[in-house]
Amino acid sequence: MATVGFLGLGIMGKAMAANLVNAGFDVTVWNRNPEKCKELEALGARSAASPKEVAAHCDITFAMVSDPEAALDICQGENGVAAGIGEGRGYIDMSTVDDATSQTIAETITQAGGRFLEAPVSGTKKPAEDGTLIILAAGDKSLYDDATPAFDVMGKMAPFLGEVGQGANMKLVVNMMMGGMLSIFSEGMALGLKSGLTGDQILDVVSAGAIANPMFAGKGAMMLAENYSTSFPLKHMQKDMRLAVSLGDKLDLPLPTAATANESFKQALKAGFGDEDITAIYKVVK
Amino acid sequence: MATVGFLGLGIMGKAMAANLVNAGFDVTVWNRNPEKCKELEALGARSAASPKEVAAHCDITFAMVSDPEAALDICQGENGVAAGIGEGRGYIDMSTVDDATSQTIAETITQAGGRFLEAPVSGTKKPAEDGTLIILAAGDKSLYDDATPAFDVMGKMAPFLGEVGQGANMKLVVNMMMGGMLSIFSEGMALGLKSGLTGDQILDVVSAGAIANPMFAGKGAMMLAENYSTSFPLKHMQKDMRLAVSLGDKLDLPLPTAATANESFKQALKAGFGDEDITAIYKVVK
Amino acid sequence: MATVGFLGLGIMGKAMAANLVNAGFDVTVWNRNPEKCKELEALGARSAASPKEVAAHCDITFAMVSDPEAALDICQGENGVAAGIGEGRGYIDMSTVDDATSQTIAETITQAGGRFLEAPVSGTKKPAEDGTLIILAAGDKSLYDDATPAFDVMGKMAPFLGEVGQGANMKLVVNMMMGGMLSIFSEGMALGLKSGLTGDQILDVVSAGAIANPMFAGKGAMMLAENYSTSFPLKHMQKDMRLAVSLGDKLDLPLPTAATANESFKQALKAGFGDEDITAIYKVVK
Amino acid sequence: MATVGFLGLGIMGKAMAANLVNAGFDVTVWNRNPEKCKELEALGARSAASPKEVAAHCDITFAMVSDPEAALDICQGENGVAAGIGEGRGYIDMSTVDDATSQTIAETITQAGGRFLEAPVSGTKKPAEDGTLIILAAGDKSLYDDATPAFDVMGKMAPFLGEVGQGANMKLVVNMMMGGMLSIFSEGMALGLKSGLTGDQILDVVSAGAIANPMFAGKGAMMLAENYSTSFPLKHMQKDMRLAVSLGDKLDLPLPTAATANESFKQALKAGFGDEDITAIYKVVK
Repeated sequence: MATVGFLGLGIMGKAMAANLVNAGFDVTVWNRNPEKCKELEALGARSAASPKEVAAHCDITFAMVSDPEAALDICQGENGVAAGIGEGRGYIDMSTVDDATSQTIAETITQAGGRFLEAPVSGTKKPAEDGTLIILAAGDKSLYDDATPAFDVMGKMAPFLGEVGQGANMKLVVNMMMGGMLSIFSEGMALGLKSGLTGDQILDVVSAGAIANPMFAGKGAMMLAENYSTSFPLKHMQKDMRLAVSLGDKLDLPLPTAATANESFKQALKAGFGDEDITAIYKVVK
Repeated sequence: MATVGFLGLGIMGKAMAANLVNAGFDVTVWNRNPEKCKELEALGARSAASPKEVAAHCDITFAMVSDPEAALDICQGENGVAAGIGEGRGYIDMSTVDDATSQTIAETITQAGGRFLEAPVSGTKKPAEDGTLIILAAGDKSLYDDATPAFDVMGKMAPFLGEVGQGANMKLVVNMMMGGMLSIFSEGMALGLKSGLTGDQILDVVSAGAIANPMFAGKGAMMLAENYSTSFPLKHMQKDMRLAVSLGDKLDLPLPTAATANESFKQALKAGFGDEDITAIYKVVK
Repeated sequence: MATVGFLGLGIMGKAMAANLVNAGFDVTVWNRNPEKCKELEALGARSAASPKEVAAHCDITFAMVSDPEAALDICQGENGVAAGIGEGRGYIDMSTVDDATSQTIAETITQAGGRFLEAPVSGTKKPAEDGTLIILAAGDKSLYDDATPAFDVMGKMAPFLGEVGQGANMKLVVNMMMGGMLSIFSEGMALGLKSGLTGDQILDVVSAGAIANPMFAGKGAMMLAENYSTSFPLKHMQKDMRLAVSLGDKLDLPLPTAATANESFKQALKAGFGDEDITAIYKVVK
Repeated sequence: MATVGFLGLGIMGKAMAANLVNAGFDVTVWNRNPEKCKELEALGARSAASPKEVAAHCDITFAMVSDPEAALDICQGENGVAAGIGEGRGYIDMSTVDDATSQTIAETITQAGGRFLEAPVSGTKKPAEDGTLIILAAGDKSLYDDATPAFDVMGKMAPFLGEVGQGANMKLVVNMMMGGMLSIFSEGMALGLKSGLTGDQILDVVSAGAIANPMFAGKGAMMLAENYSTSFPLKHMQKDMRLAVSLGDKLDLPLPTAATANESFKQALKAGFGDEDITAIYKVVK
């Protein structure tokens, strides 16, 4: 079994790395704040002093950090991945970053002799813990094949989607659908309630039919309970809607429903709900 | 077990009546074209010469006809239900009609001494045959209670939603969500394909996540196969979207996503796809 | 010069009737509250006891009342216009009514032997006083020709638009453009101010270019002054936007920009601004 | 009177420079293709061998080139403006460029000791020739004051709008209004024609009322004549709509009408009308 590295032990990364350790992988971890490495060491992981050390030591190094700046830094910075990776080793960035950042990291790693895969995930804390993430992989196919056993541990599916950029595109497509669905669902709930139906009646009927889906069930109950505690921050959803509409723009593809739903998410941002859950769109619709 | 009548033996009505006969109900049927009654007679139903006769003979009479005009006619016409129903018998119209028609029928039946329930259904031919319709009942609660055994045979759920009109409102709410979802799904599919993903990749990822639902699975495969054979005509969906937006108008409730999706369905109507399946919206989006 | 009648002496009607008297027409007026007739009598008009009397006495009778119910009542009610009009006399309803009401009035008058013209106007109090209304006439062409001298007094233009219904359609077209323009203008003003420009800078630049128009100049200054005093109530504009979108619906014509602007006007209604001026849309946009 | 330079003698630049010469300014011109300088020399201008030479010789140098790349090149390139400008001289870029480009040029010039003004214009060939452009100036106020006599020759108004960036923002605001107006105007024209009115009737009524504006008069006649010959390419308008919506995004300002109109322009792009006039939006609306 390959030696694997894991950079970034936030809420997501910690759960993913733990799953790898528990599945028997030889795991070396690194985190900007080294305190967080201890929990993984307790499970049986080693830790290293820098991304460079991890990359130099492991066959495949995974990263899961919070934003493009951090992703660039652990790759290109002093003692970064590129400085250690050497010929043939693999680097898989699972962070959600924009297209330009992903391309820059891909070029940096490739020029350093390494192989690269972008692999943003769909799913939050719970699926990360349960190993049921959806992993959207794109880039070097040989690295994808080598990483499959690790993907099997971290996710429930990990399709290979083509060239670097296609993982990010798939994530935009899915999140755009998700945002549009939340917007029309909020409007439908509000319309039903205003016309005298109860929220439970609506959720029951929706959950019995062809449009039943886990998001409506989970988020619908939250909306009715006026519970907007954050699992997916609304401002991130709005950003994804905007990026999806921009992608349509580049491809000369009109996306009127997405563009309109995006404006509803912006209404929610303007009302100050950006840090609440995506369900907070309901507050400006109802 | 109550004696029940069934008026209207089209694709839907024939299947629903057959389920009632097969479940052991004493069923009397009527259809404008009496030829269609023979199949039901072969299963064990009786037939009668007019809606009036059916209503006079049965504890509860169901109707399932194709449009408001037919619904009004079998109720108010010469030899119609109102002429036969008498004190305390029940009439349940399961056709999809507009609010005004439903109110007129309710008043006509009530003034004739009968009890009335509107009960439009969600679901098409297959659920009608399988007895898995979603029945949206509203009106006389005592009649609802009496009809429950029959609803159990025809549908998988039949919530009681309140006063006459609430069944129709629920149907608009659900169909509005359905239309909005189809619109954003079409846009997402088109965006994914234009950005280089394959349709199968998109459907796989969608079907694995929180937004997975039977409609996307079924309709998505149809879209990819460019199969727009009609199970729910697009022009009917557009009509429901329009009525839902109008209902929002009456309630001073903005519905921007629904209004925009409605315009996309109108694009499809304008392009001549009104008689094709609702999936034909994809043809004007992609 | 023909004898003319005028029914309805509200803000608009009083000004229009006064202009006719002052231009030398022999005018007979009627108003539900007869007190209001005195001002016109002082100018030289006669008054009569009912719409029937006015119609029986005059070659052409004009009406300008506030809503469809009033328009129907003075035409069809006891002592209404239809009871007095007789063979060949003319009736011109300048009120803003829906299509069905206009058709009903047209039939009633025609069956009574009279000639009919619908002639809704574009313009409010000031143009009514100044005799600069835009009169949108449709119906009986011979009556239109006979009424031209009176139209010349009341308005600055009075095109003949065809069959009954076309006057109302033209009004919807113009008001739909007006509503859409107010919506995009509000968005542009809000965008400019948020990006650091001043309102005066924006109005100056707009007023110097190809999009300069009296509405932006007048309404723009009101918005900047946060003056939403009513000259055209927002709820009436929203009603017209809705009717225009519905007309598109009947004609299978998608109107996405109008439909979206309509939703913005509904946001303003929901916020409680229905009785304020149409400029109050700016309050929900900014 | 100050010595002025003019860089870029395309359709716009040639007309603007000629107006300066004719007004008595001492003008030195440069163009990438020196052939074009001859016409200006015939009027009395001098010509120079490079932007550097022009900038070194003149008190104020104006530039009017076609895109951001050209704008950057004549400023920063070898023998560019920055190499010649020296302490206190002024550079005024009247090209339409994005915000980042404008900021880069501003910094380059300032670091070279010069003063900078961005001054994009509203208006095309005819206003350039007639000296009736709208000049949207922002940046160094002292340079603005010095340039006022030249602005007076080239334009009918030249407000000072604040810091570098505000000129570009104003242009986006105005063009966003313009695009939204064209979209609702196209929808209104299509609705009127489909409902049986004639185009001339609609244009007449529009031109008589509060929404009358030069753009509707000019572009409306073109639409009716199915004349889409380009004076403002549709793809540039769509780009401006997109940038305006993005600016709203940055400022947390929902712009639903603009976003929807943008999608209609994208429909026209998708249909292949990007190089036709902005009026070609009508072809996808009607």
